[in-house]
Amino acid sequence: MTAFPADLEACFAARDAQFLDDLFAFLRIPSVSARSEHNVDTQRAAAWLHERLARIGFAVETIPTAGHPVVLAEWRKAPAGAPTIVVYGHYDVQPPEPLDLWTSPAFEPTIRDGKLFARGSVDDKGQLFAHVAALETLLEVRGALPVNVIVLAEGEEEIGSEHLAPFIEAHKARLACDGVVISDSSMFAPGIPSILSSLRGLAYFEINVRGPASDLHSGSYGGAVVNPAMALARILATMHDADGHVVIPGFYDAVRAFPPNVIAGMRKLPFDEEHFRQEVGATALGGEPQFTVLEKLWTRPTCEVNGMLSGYTGEGAKTVLPGVSMAKVSCRLVPDQDPAEIERLMKAHVASVAPKGVTVTVTHLHGGKPWRADLEGPLFEAAKVALESAFGRAPEVTGEGGSIPVVGDFERILGVPVLLMGFGLPGENAHAPDEWISVDNFRRGMRAIAALFEQLGAAK
Amino acid sequence: MTAFPADLEACFAARDAQFLDDLFAFLRIPSVSARSEHNVDTQRAAAWLHERLARIGFAVETIPTAGHPVVLAEWRKAPAGAPTIVVYGHYDVQPPEPLDLWTSPAFEPTIRDGKLFARGSVDDKGQLFAHVAALETLLEVRGALPVNVIVLAEGEEEIGSEHLAPFIEAHKARLACDGVVISDSSMFAPGIPSILSSLRGLAYFEINVRGPASDLHSGSYGGAVVNPAMALARILATMHDADGHVVIPGFYDAVRAFPPNVIAGMRKLPFDEEHFRQEVGATALGGEPQFTVLEKLWTRPTCEVNGMLSGYTGEGAKTVLPGVSMAKVSCRLVPDQDPAEIERLMKAHVASVAPKGVTVTVTHLHGGKPWRADLEGPLFEAAKVALESAFGRAPEVTGEGGSIPVVGDFERILGVPVLLMGFGLPGENAHAPDEWISVDNFRRGMRAIAALFEQLGAAK
Repeated sequence: MTAFPADLEACFAARDAQFLDDLFAFLRIPSVSARSEHNVDTQRAAAWLHERLARIGFAVETIPTAGHPVVLAEWRKAPAGAPTIVVYGHYDVQPPEPLDLWTSPAFEPTIRDGKLFARGSVDDKGQLFAHVAALETLLEVRGALPVNVIVLAEGEEEIGSEHLAPFIEAHKARLACDGVVISDSSMFAPGIPSILSSLRGLAYFEINVRGPASDLHSGSYGGAVVNPAMALARILATMHDADGHVVIPGFYDAVRAFPPNVIAGMRKLPFDEEHFRQEVGATALGGEPQFTVLEKLWTRPTCEVNGMLSGYTGEGAKTVLPGVSMAKVSCRLVPDQDPAEIERLMKAHVASVAPKGVTVTVTHLHGGKPWRADLEGPLFEAAKVALESAFGRAPEVTGEGGSIPVVGDFERILGVPVLLMGFGLPGENAHAPDEWISVDNFRRGMRAIAALFEQLGAAK
Repeated sequence: MTAFPADLEACFAARDAQFLDDLFAFLRIPSVSARSEHNVDTQRAAAWLHERLARIGFAVETIPTAGHPVVLAEWRKAPAGAPTIVVYGHYDVQPPEPLDLWTSPAFEPTIRDGKLFARGSVDDKGQLFAHVAALETLLEVRGALPVNVIVLAEGEEEIGSEHLAPFIEAHKARLACDGVVISDSSMFAPGIPSILSSLRGLAYFEINVRGPASDLHSGSYGGAVVNPAMALARILATMHDADGHVVIPGFYDAVRAFPPNVIAGMRKLPFDEEHFRQEVGATALGGEPQFTVLEKLWTRPTCEVNGMLSGYTGEGAKTVLPGVSMAKVSCRLVPDQDPAEIERLMKAHVASVAPKGVTVTVTHLHGGKPWRADLEGPLFEAAKVALESAFGRAPEVTGEGGSIPVVGDFERILGVPVLLMGFGLPGENAHAPDEWISVDNFRRGMRAIAALFEQLGAAK
């Protein structure tokens, strides 16, 4: 195991209270990107970050977009031949509501039991600031960074990052680099540093079924008119077999198996399926029986109903034969499934099973491609060493069932590997009241990031 | 054909304007039983009816119930051996909302194009008043009624007639009679007088599916947790085969076939299925292919989804794996299906198809038995002659897909036949804005009722 450098450790220890104070100041700014009444705060958070990066020697620009601005900070004085690394993060946060469910106010950072509670603590201001603090420490202790660094912080991650991919495209030359590092994810469990190696993609649909021109009396018309709610139920029921396997023709055709060593690694992770079941609160778990829960969540595509509405849904009885019905249905995708192809397959399947007497339309609301890291090359090798030196344990390779579309955008547009090295933890309430980051993880995260840059500089 | 008696005709003609005026006065009272702010109006409507029946010589009592009162009016001076007939109707009306969809105000009766528009015009004040006017005319012209008559008018029909069956039970001896006549239904088509011979019953259920303890992120959990919305869809899809036949085991066991002559009569009715399809506004009709539309609606039981709700149903996409889902499902029943037995079958079926990982509950919200008239005996013979004399055409025997629970209550508690002889028409907007009754049907209806009593008196 590579020991964590003593001089860096001394500096981190000396500045610990200062870094927490600085993070508190950043967290106190309610940069809720979704709310226009907070636009001034979102601007303030960008300005705070701009000023902070400028102070430690970065050349910083706050670049407007059609939405919230991008803070772009560059430090390019590394020795010739040193790699260039883009650090991505976001300075906007989720809305804090419902406010009454917060133990302490969302924008008044508070430490309890080793957890720093505040909106944005883990998602993503705390993790973004860990990068700033690591860079600051390296500059202070070493007088220079071992690599060229570009910090790119956006203010629209919580509202869909609409302007980010165009921004990367437009600044492609300036962002040319050897790798992208993102700390906006979680570790597998406390004490287990993690490299997140895969994300599922998404194809989200709305299915609308139209039957009679209006709601009808179910007594006067029932039995002679095709019921759009029942028709929708029958359509949805054709999407899986009894084992939870998706039976939309062609659905699995593009699925590329995960490497056996990655699967073997997942099977060795300390994961208790019974504990997961209890946490979920279901009487039994579901899905394809031949896979473990982690394989189901990280390596297998899904087809889920997200919402369903038809007819009378209030209290008691109303004898209506609904005129329309609607379902939201989304597929989580794994490499190399493509949202556009899944859209084609979904539409073809629904058309093939739709009964006569109703008109069924399938609308693709939005999609995102799945992503999987190669897990090879200097970026990942450096991350393994750095995480081990900061956490005292080799990292695990994990997956994620959700989607982070920007990851694929960076990889595709810049043509470089993306490293997802996050310091959150399960149960961190990222989009809920009482969001928190482990103070220990924040401290170890700063050190891991500093070690990462040192490793990358040494590996040049 | 029996000609309509000239002396009665002369009296009806002479009093035509007066009867319409009187009906207008009755309709102007907004006796909306569902709204407590209209309780004073509902009382006024009962009082109006009380006074009117007392004026023509009935012994009238307004009898309180736990809800709105029953007006009970008796005339028992018919010759010895004459039958006793109960006339049932209701003086309460549906709420008039949405008010802006009325062409003329709901409680300001207005005649346009031969239609009398007002809330309650056809359901049921207009039809109830036709009885009062017929009795008044008979008393005026003949000096007496040919039969003993008990008028029973309730004020809670539009809110479920909760206190009517107990009232009939409690006054069973006083209500002892040879038959019940109800005019609260529609004719098959303009110019075709109708005897309504069957009603479907009802068993109305709510199905609740509970999966995880709360809504989950569909990315982080999807694929390993049974989705309650998808589970509900799969349960609903097991209730029919592809032809619309209900496949809940035992569902049809108690169905008693309609007599071949009744089916033959239905097949001869002037009914255009393509016109029905256009009116409904569906691209095709549905249901069991071996039956005509009228047979499907009048003689076959159904299982319909009345409502369905789960997860996110707003605009756009939300990646939620819902914690719960709900469907309202109701079965229309035909003789001799029993709501309690259908409840047992539904619960057993749902339990047998419910997947592991979710908890499914089926709640029976309410039910009503199906009903079918024997169509034999003096009451029906008299009705045929009376309708023909008033409309110039023999009546058709029709069915109805909806339910009128009080019909079964009268038959069961009093042990006598019930005659459903209504004067509404298709499209009369009974529970909608612009409710109307055909003025011609109101006039012919009064005459048919008078003729019915004369026939019943003559047949004694």
